[in-house]
Amino acid sequence: MFEQLGLIGCGLMGGSFALALKRAGLVKRVVGYSKSPTTTARALSMGVIDVEAPSALLAVSGADVVLVAVPVAATEATFKAIRHLVTPQTLVMDVGSTKRDVVDAARRLLRDNVGCFVPCHPVAGKELSGVENADPDLYDGRQLIITPIERTDPRHLARAEALWQALGCHVEQMSPEAHDAAFAAVSHLPHMVAFALVNAIAAQPRGQDFLGLAGPGFRDFTRIAASEPKMWRDILLANREELLTQSRLFREALQALERMVEGGNAEALEAAIGQASHLRAHWRMGTHRKSS
Amino acid sequence: MFEQLGLIGCGLMGGSFALALKRAGLVKRVVGYSKSPTTTARALSMGVIDVEAPSALLAVSGADVVLVAVPVAATEATFKAIRHLVTPQTLVMDVGSTKRDVVDAARRLLRDNVGCFVPCHPVAGKELSGVENADPDLYDGRQLIITPIERTDPRHLARAEALWQALGCHVEQMSPEAHDAAFAAVSHLPHMVAFALVNAIAAQPRGQDFLGLAGPGFRDFTRIAASEPKMWRDILLANREELLTQSRLFREALQALERMVEGGNAEALEAAIGQASHLRAHWRMGTHRKSS
Repeated sequence: MFEQLGLIGCGLMGGSFALALKRAGLVKRVVGYSKSPTTTARALSMGVIDVEAPSALLAVSGADVVLVAVPVAATEATFKAIRHLVTPQTLVMDVGSTKRDVVDAARRLLRDNVGCFVPCHPVAGKELSGVENADPDLYDGRQLIITPIERTDPRHLARAEALWQALGCHVEQMSPEAHDAAFAAVSHLPHMVAFALVNAIAAQPRGQDFLGLAGPGFRDFTRIAASEPKMWRDILLANREELLTQSRLFREALQALERMVEGGNAEALEAAIGQASHLRAHWRMGTHRKSS
Repeated sequence: MFEQLGLIGCGLMGGSFALALKRAGLVKRVVGYSKSPTTTARALSMGVIDVEAPSALLAVSGADVVLVAVPVAATEATFKAIRHLVTPQTLVMDVGSTKRDVVDAARRLLRDNVGCFVPCHPVAGKELSGVENADPDLYDGRQLIITPIERTDPRHLARAEALWQALGCHVEQMSPEAHDAAFAAVSHLPHMVAFALVNAIAAQPRGQDFLGLAGPGFRDFTRIAASEPKMWRDILLANREELLTQSRLFREALQALERMVEGGNAEALEAAIGQASHLRAHWRMGTHRKSS
C-alpha cells in the first residue's frame, strides 16, 4: 500500500505504528528520525525502522506517508522543519492527544499543503513510554479520532481512514473543538487528578506510610499518574481552557459529595454514588459511534 | 484448626473468606447467615457455607471463630444481635474498611467480651460485590491490617494473625486511628474522587458522548467508581473527618496544578507532574512493613 513511511519521533506511539504497519505488510520501508540518537539507534536495532534519517526533513524525503509522533508542543517545530519536502501527494498524519493546537500549527506552517495533513488521535497508550515499549498491538481494537478541517484533501482522508482501519482501529471523525472538549473530560482531567492525588498524599508527614498501605483500588486509579512528565505538561497546557472548565466542574461535583458526607446526608450520598456506580458498571470502552 | 466458622454476611468478602478457609483445611464446618435469604441460598448452593443459620445469633452458636462481614454501618446492630452467645473462647473478627467506628461499637456492645474481638481490614476487594463473585484467592498476597485495642486478648490476636497468614496475607498492626487516617487518603478519597469525576462528566449536555470516547486510562482510573453504593456510602460517612481532611488537601493540590496550567507555568507544571510520576512509577503494592 505504501512505499516508504517517514517516521518523526520513534517513541512508544511512533514505534508501535511502524511495527503494526510492517506486520500488516502495508509499508515497504521505514525511515525514522528521533531527536535523541539513542532512541533512533534502539529503533534501528529493534527493527522498528529500517533506515536512520539525520533530520526530520530527510525522514520526509521520498516518503509517501509521514507520521509525526512527537510531543504536541514539538509539532509546530516539526512542521516547520519538514514543510519544504511535503508535497500534495504526501499523506501526513500526527498522533497528538490535542487537536486544536495541532491543526492551527498545520494551517500556519503547511499553508498550501495543509490539505495533505490528516490530524489523528489514536485513543491508545501506556504509562510506559519509549521505543522499548513499542507494541504492534497497541492500536488494535482502539478508537482512532480524525479531526479534518475544511481544507483536508478527501483522498488523503480516505487513505488515512483505510490505513488505521487496517491496523484494527474504529475510525471516527469529529471537529478539533469537539475532540478537545471531550478529551479534556475523559483523559486530560483524570491525568491531572491522578497527579494531584499522588502529590497530595506524598506531601503529608505520614505520606510514605500511607502509600505503603495502598491496595489494588489505588493501583488502578493512579496508574496514569506514572505517565511521562514532559508529554503531559504539554498536553495539559495545549488544552488549558477546556481542561480548566472540566476541572472546575469536577471540583464542584466533589464538593457536593463532601457536603453530603459532612452533613451526614446518607440518602443523597447513596443516590450520588449509585448514579456513578450504575454509569460506570454499564460503561464499555470504545462505544462511541456518532460524531459530536 | 477451627471446628466451626460462624459467618455473618455471605457477600464477596465473607464468601471469599469461607472458601479460602475451607480450601486451606482450616475449618470443619461453616454456618452462615445473611440478611438476604437469596444470598444465603446461593452461598449454600455454591458450597460457601454448609449450614444456613436463621439469625446472626444462631450463626454464632457453637462457633469457635466468627467473621462479621457486613457493611460497616451494620456492624453495631450485628454485635447487638450476637453478644449473648459470644464467649471469652470465641474469636470474633470483622473485615470493615474503617476501624474507629467498629472498635467503638465493639467496646460499647461486647463489653466484658470485647477482648475476643480482633478488628481486621483485609486490603482486598473487587468492584463486583455479592457471593457470586466470591473467590478463594481474594486475600492471597494482600495486606491484612489488625487494629487491636488495649483490651484485645493476646491469644485471640495471635490466632487471628496465624489464620490470615495461612490465607497468604501479610499481617500488620496499627492503631484504629492510624488506620483510618491512612485509608482515608489511599482508598476512601480515591473512591469519592472517582464517583465525583463520573458524575461531573455525566451531568454535562455532551456527557454521554464524552464517555463513549474514553480509553484505557479512564477505564482503570474509574474502575472503583462502579463499587457498591450502600457499602461506600457507609464507609465515607463512618470516616468522614479524615476523609474531609484528605479531600481538602487533594483539592489544594489540584488547584495548584490548575494555577500552573492557567499561568502557562511549564517549568513548575513539569516538576509537579514529574514528582507524581516518579513516585507512582516506583510505588509497589503491599510494601508497608512498619506500623505507624
